[in-house]
Amino acid sequence: MNLHHWTAGLHHDSSELYVSNPLPKLDEIVTIRLRAPLNAPIDRVFVRSTPDGEGHFDRMEIVDQDSVSAYWSVKIKVTNPFYNYRFKIITTEGAYTLNQLGVFRSEVPDWHDFKLIANFNAPEWLEDRVFYQIFPDRFHDGDSANNVPLGGWEQWGFKAQPRAWGEPPMKWEDGASMDFFGGDLQGIHQKIDYLCDLGVNALYLTPIFTSKSNHRYNIEDFYNVDPHVGGNDALVNLREALHEADIRLVLDVTPNHTGDLHPWFMEGRKDANALSADFYTFYERPDDYEAWLGVRSLPKLNYASEKLREVMYRAEDSVLRHWLKAPYKIDGWRLDVMNMTARQGSHQFSHKIMRGIRRAVKAENPQAYLLGENFFDGSPYLQGDEMDATMNYSGFNLPTWRWLIGYENGADWRPEIADNVPLPSDAYADQLNQFRASIPWVIAKQQFNQLCSHDTARILHIVKGDKSLVKLGAAMLMCYVGVPCVYYGDEIALPGGPDPDNRRTMPWDDAQWDNDMRGWYQKLIALRQNSPALKRGGYQRVMAEGNLMAFQRQSPEQRLIVVGYRGPDAAEAATIPVRHTGLADGVRLVDLLGSGLSVTVENGAIQLGKLEKGTTLVLEAHA
Amino acid sequence: MNLHHWTAGLHHDSSELYVSNPLPKLDEIVTIRLRAPLNAPIDRVFVRSTPDGEGHFDRMEIVDQDSVSAYWSVKIKVTNPFYNYRFKIITTEGAYTLNQLGVFRSEVPDWHDFKLIANFNAPEWLEDRVFYQIFPDRFHDGDSANNVPLGGWEQWGFKAQPRAWGEPPMKWEDGASMDFFGGDLQGIHQKIDYLCDLGVNALYLTPIFTSKSNHRYNIEDFYNVDPHVGGNDALVNLREALHEADIRLVLDVTPNHTGDLHPWFMEGRKDANALSADFYTFYERPDDYEAWLGVRSLPKLNYASEKLREVMYRAEDSVLRHWLKAPYKIDGWRLDVMNMTARQGSHQFSHKIMRGIRRAVKAENPQAYLLGENFFDGSPYLQGDEMDATMNYSGFNLPTWRWLIGYENGADWRPEIADNVPLPSDAYADQLNQFRASIPWVIAKQQFNQLCSHDTARILHIVKGDKSLVKLGAAMLMCYVGVPCVYYGDEIALPGGPDPDNRRTMPWDDAQWDNDMRGWYQKLIALRQNSPALKRGGYQRVMAEGNLMAFQRQSPEQRLIVVGYRGPDAAEAATIPVRHTGLADGVRLVDLLGSGLSVTVENGAIQLGKLEKGTTLVLEAHA
Repeated sequence: MNLHHWTAGLHHDSSELYVSNPLPKLDEIVTIRLRAPLNAPIDRVFVRSTPDGEGHFDRMEIVDQDSVSAYWSVKIKVTNPFYNYRFKIITTEGAYTLNQLGVFRSEVPDWHDFKLIANFNAPEWLEDRVFYQIFPDRFHDGDSANNVPLGGWEQWGFKAQPRAWGEPPMKWEDGASMDFFGGDLQGIHQKIDYLCDLGVNALYLTPIFTSKSNHRYNIEDFYNVDPHVGGNDALVNLREALHEADIRLVLDVTPNHTGDLHPWFMEGRKDANALSADFYTFYERPDDYEAWLGVRSLPKLNYASEKLREVMYRAEDSVLRHWLKAPYKIDGWRLDVMNMTARQGSHQFSHKIMRGIRRAVKAENPQAYLLGENFFDGSPYLQGDEMDATMNYSGFNLPTWRWLIGYENGADWRPEIADNVPLPSDAYADQLNQFRASIPWVIAKQQFNQLCSHDTARILHIVKGDKSLVKLGAAMLMCYVGVPCVYYGDEIALPGGPDPDNRRTMPWDDAQWDNDMRGWYQKLIALRQNSPALKRGGYQRVMAEGNLMAFQRQSPEQRLIVVGYRGPDAAEAATIPVRHTGLADGVRLVDLLGSGLSVTVENGAIQLGKLEKGTTLVLEAHA
Repeated sequence: MNLHHWTAGLHHDSSELYVSNPLPKLDEIVTIRLRAPLNAPIDRVFVRSTPDGEGHFDRMEIVDQDSVSAYWSVKIKVTNPFYNYRFKIITTEGAYTLNQLGVFRSEVPDWHDFKLIANFNAPEWLEDRVFYQIFPDRFHDGDSANNVPLGGWEQWGFKAQPRAWGEPPMKWEDGASMDFFGGDLQGIHQKIDYLCDLGVNALYLTPIFTSKSNHRYNIEDFYNVDPHVGGNDALVNLREALHEADIRLVLDVTPNHTGDLHPWFMEGRKDANALSADFYTFYERPDDYEAWLGVRSLPKLNYASEKLREVMYRAEDSVLRHWLKAPYKIDGWRLDVMNMTARQGSHQFSHKIMRGIRRAVKAENPQAYLLGENFFDGSPYLQGDEMDATMNYSGFNLPTWRWLIGYENGADWRPEIADNVPLPSDAYADQLNQFRASIPWVIAKQQFNQLCSHDTARILHIVKGDKSLVKLGAAMLMCYVGVPCVYYGDEIALPGGPDPDNRRTMPWDDAQWDNDMRGWYQKLIALRQNSPALKRGGYQRVMAEGNLMAFQRQSPEQRLIVVGYRGPDAAEAATIPVRHTGLADGVRLVDLLGSGLSVTVENGAIQLGKLEKGTTLVLEAHA
């Protein structure tokens, strides 16, 4: 990206400032707008789409201009369910293509086109939400009577064992994930005030269904909440209390495998005529079967089975539909290891199954949120007919770590595959762009962003304890496109390396809290909750050079320039060119994060003075 | 692409020099190789794949080196039918990703990964073929007895009319595509010696089935060759003669629509209970129906109909299977307007239908060639389970026009959408790369490349009569990745603007031939037929700057540097850096096109002297 060439000032995204209705019905007519520098050598501009596979050109006209930009516009008809488009900009220098990835002098394939999805069932409540992820056993013990007793069961030569709140979690080799701290749904219920005080208004809980481990990903009963987290009644009670507090609830389920104690598996492995015999792949009964990544206790479900499809998502009371109904009425599902589900060597059913899951879930509740785990490239699942979102590791979390400090996923457990050179700022911006540009905007807006999760080391560990970088990361999280989620405890600077250290108990003695960090999170969350530009605004890269990353978020109501500086402490003042964002000279920008900074655009740039390591500025434009 | 950075010397493609078997079976173990500059700051290299959706890293080791390059290698197991991979290259500068599009400092989505397809039914005969496209009515009249008589039928107020060989084709408004010159299959049969002399060894014929137009895309009987081109017997005879001459035969069919005289349509529009009633979309019988791009005489087929799927490709004697059987045994199909087939507003079945067509066609003959028309982005159809190839307009033909002279498709019939500034050489190389990088290598190698066709103006018209540019274009056609096809008459410099002028009769009075041009085509075709590097070799961009385009083609047996210069006549000598191709100083390169040029690599570059406009050099390396 060359900021000095006029083409840097070409901008479109599919947010409401540039598409009159980002969620059109089929055959609806929408207005498409493009911003271009006022004196660009543009002769004519077309929206190029390929409805029904054939090229189609709608010619744009200038409908508006201000002192720096011209706004081109045209009405188009969304005649296909998946409507991709780009801009063909014919100039005296030749024609340019503008798509979601950027500007090209040649034609390019359609993969990075802008994309509208007609009749898309978006969970529209998402944009007003900041999520909080809880690992239920570790958040709060609300009812000690339901705690797992010592030796409650035995498995693999280990006994289930209760642990005292605050003790370190045990390694797998010491406790086989059967050390329990007693956290439960009652505990969450009792801490709703804490959540409200923090400002979050949606929960994502890792699994709560009956399982004989503290993570509960080895589910043995999809239809019952584990009694040790409170059972079904506790869920109903929690749901009601959350509803009153206007907090949404997303649960976690594994459609990829069950635990080996699930009756489907226990019956199927014994008896080739069992109802569930084809729910798994048995090479030879009882012991030779397909297991998730070879983990014997997690037999992999076989989606070649039509019966399995029925029971998992198709039938009226299938697993995925059951919990969307009253009295539970959860607001969505996080699908564990979605990336691997229904994929097995020569049998690759994942897209068919995910389309089926979407149809079933949306039939139950069109506003339900369907979120799939994916550490790699989720974009094939994010084209409009499968997932609403993935856990956006590759599109936000992992590159943010690499940019902040050069920590790459795997560094703690397979260092040979990890890079430890910090990602250059332009490469960071590129990676965000690459993943965002591969999916429709309305889905990018739904992507689930985190700084860390129960599956990674905590952000404080990642940045080697440097809280200025945690703060910068949290600010990027709240300001970037997508739905932000705070992993429980990050807001009080709870430490934690890789699993299981990342699953420590939440301390409720506030003397153990970092209240400065908590205040920062509260401020950021409040900023997000009150900012139309952060919730719904489009995105434009402003500058990504040296140690600085800056982008614009803009909605019809608000225009923000977000600046992040990863350090080291600057010797020189930062200059940020902004002419290509459409900001005119004389516009005043005021920081919303309390630095008191106010700057005015001069000669197409802003001067920020010397920045400290970890600085974030969220500069709001005032005409 | 920065030629001065060492990463320009990283190279892999999925050709046999870098993949031990580019056509592996499922679960086969193949060796993957990577070339890297000898003194690159590389610490470790991994092949990163995502089998079953999960990241997988195979660590490479250096197994070989020469004076400029190190060769990294690892064995991998192709555990998925569609196996995508990339390289993660960890260096002292940080990690780089190498995929089909190039080198990235960050992670990127999988779309441009290298891709292996297990158990792929490749038409392996393709790589030895140069195609020749014939518009049957205009090539040669072998039997005047079967010619269309004056007033043979009437339609739309026009009469069918014979024309004398050599007269100009009539415009639609003057003759409604019912002017016939009498070309037929017997005529092609009689000219087999001409084809052999030219050196081509595969034919693509536009439609020959019974239709009441000279182009025969409005088919009214899929099971009979039009009597005016000789009927079924002439096809059997031609097939046999071609077989003896070792010339393959591909026919053209329209699965998207029929003519309005097809009995399916005539019965279906009258009677809602007709067997073919649901083969089309009737909004109101008889006159309100879906037609191709609104052309009333071409009613669009409706692939929601299971019966239509049966008759078109599923059934044993379905249209697409019928002609693959004896006695016709054609070698493949060109599917007209494939891009639009089975796409109709809310009904988008195209990928499902194309997967079905592939299964049916390959069941009949696994070596059959399935070629779909597509002027836009065909890559979604080219991932291994649908088409073998598209007519590669976007990936070769159209950017070649734009590079040669700045002629963009549409310039003759909708000039407002066309750019007329020549494509910079780097943008040309980028466009070739973008389209090639979106599909598996084994499919890129099957892509159908042309300089023009019956659907475009002729190349001589495109370049405004500049034969030096025709020659350069023809050389690019024969040297680029894919299957080259010559449009009949181009080899003798037959002129022709847009349709119908591009469909002039082939002159058989050789006084009308440009024999210099014909000699150039013969030389190029012979070069291609005798060059393992052009047939099967990988591709690496060498340089694309100013008016010069250079690339490497390399197979285990041969290594070529192809240089194309579009002019103007150079004032200065061209210097081409080649260190990043792995060519060592001291290697001698000799032109295979007869210029007599021989150059030696010095200081990582070759000096070519002053080039004339339209020059092509095909420099073969001699160690």
